[in-house]
Amino acid sequence: MKVGFVQFSPVFGQVEDNISRAECFIESVEADLLVLPELFNTGYLITSREEIEKLAEPVPSGITTEALSEMASRRSCYLVAGIAERDDDKIYNSAVCVGPHGFIGAYRKIHLFSEEKNWFSPGNREFQVYDIGVCRIGIMICFDWIFPESMRTLSLKGAHVICHPSNLVLPFCQDAMKTRSLENRVYSITANRTGSEERGDKKLSYTGKSQVMSPEAELIIRSGDDTEEAHAVAIDISKAEKKLLNEYNDLFKDRRPEFYFIP
Amino acid sequence: MKVGFVQFSPVFGQVEDNISRAECFIESVEADLLVLPELFNTGYLITSREEIEKLAEPVPSGITTEALSEMASRRSCYLVAGIAERDDDKIYNSAVCVGPHGFIGAYRKIHLFSEEKNWFSPGNREFQVYDIGVCRIGIMICFDWIFPESMRTLSLKGAHVICHPSNLVLPFCQDAMKTRSLENRVYSITANRTGSEERGDKKLSYTGKSQVMSPEAELIIRSGDDTEEAHAVAIDISKAEKKLLNEYNDLFKDRRPEFYFIP
Repeated sequence: MKVGFVQFSPVFGQVEDNISRAECFIESVEADLLVLPELFNTGYLITSREEIEKLAEPVPSGITTEALSEMASRRSCYLVAGIAERDDDKIYNSAVCVGPHGFIGAYRKIHLFSEEKNWFSPGNREFQVYDIGVCRIGIMICFDWIFPESMRTLSLKGAHVICHPSNLVLPFCQDAMKTRSLENRVYSITANRTGSEERGDKKLSYTGKSQVMSPEAELIIRSGDDTEEAHAVAIDISKAEKKLLNEYNDLFKDRRPEFYFIP
Repeated sequence: MKVGFVQFSPVFGQVEDNISRAECFIESVEADLLVLPELFNTGYLITSREEIEKLAEPVPSGITTEALSEMASRRSCYLVAGIAERDDDKIYNSAVCVGPHGFIGAYRKIHLFSEEKNWFSPGNREFQVYDIGVCRIGIMICFDWIFPESMRTLSLKGAHVICHPSNLVLPFCQDAMKTRSLENRVYSITANRTGSEERGDKKLSYTGKSQVMSPEAELIIRSGDDTEEAHAVAIDISKAEKKLLNEYNDLFKDRRPEFYFIP
């Protein structure tokens, strides 16, 4: 199975252009599964509720999910990509999952970061794991990583590969994903954006370094911090199926929930 | 408050000598809290149940806990140190906590690593947090680190400082503790042993690099990988009291347990 990511620098508000640019990157690699950044179609640095209301789309009927579905069908692959989702009067920081046969599901970011709390509603659905035939994938978005419960939940629900659309601005995540992948014995694909956004008196710079990490904490591939690029690598899903660290330790069977206090 | 660790290379079975050597290191630093390695008095590379039965001691009446209590009283400090504990017909890989007024408590390693399963019973008590006046400390031992639930449990129970006696042989823990400290906004003190042990056809090499990590993922101090040394550094407990990452995110209040599946 080949999995990978698209790392690029979306332009705020230019949804159609961002979709087109993402499409070029998607076309450039052979992969069974590709992950795109968080809010890849809208950009991240929102300055008012009104502007993100205009940009947000219903799922799966919006133009972005439809375009992604069409690409997934044409390329016979699965795509996980972050978009702003409108549902009635609420807006979510979501990630859609599409495959060769169309829309599969959407995850709504459960842990909102910083000013996202001003624009988005917190996710109101469970962490989802989707069986895509060759493996099971789980989705979390950007800041979800800092809560160990996010990836633990997805892994205990059976995910082999964690798809992690991101717009990272802090320096910690990429290295921390080594620990996350190891403790759960799963692959993780962090698809980060790059570049910076400057709007009004606000500016954010994104850290790039999109990566694929193995269940054995091996950094399989990592992109540059300010380059636009797409990559895919072959992975061995069986490594994420068994949770053995050595002949004595199975990291899931060795858990002792009777002593865990995680209210 | 000054906290630190003793990193040294105990000799297998030489309990009295190991206590004496540890004492020299303890005497060499001014500290309010010092952490010693796992099984610091017995050594780690056990080859039979019989030999560890002979070396294990009752707690708190054994010679090691009594010696540690005496040192803590004389130095007016707190000590957390790993020892083999005998309780009736069971043996535990434990860590005792002593202070200026004597014995405080013992933690029994909950997640046993590799062949430890042949010699020790798994811990049968909860993760404990002790209030030592200037702060609250929690204890976990070595391999407990790989289960995010260990340090999460101690932190949610209110620990400011995680005392982590270790005999690490894998290369992951020291860097992973950056993530553990950050996600829980606590200090961590990993006191690892150094050197190697060769007994019969078995050999283990320990990775040293004992360290103190801050709640902001700052590596405050790290020792060498093959040196014997003791260090203490000043820390600011208030940094572990508040869980704010920025003005919008409190890492504990932002948790959303209704979506966590951690059976």
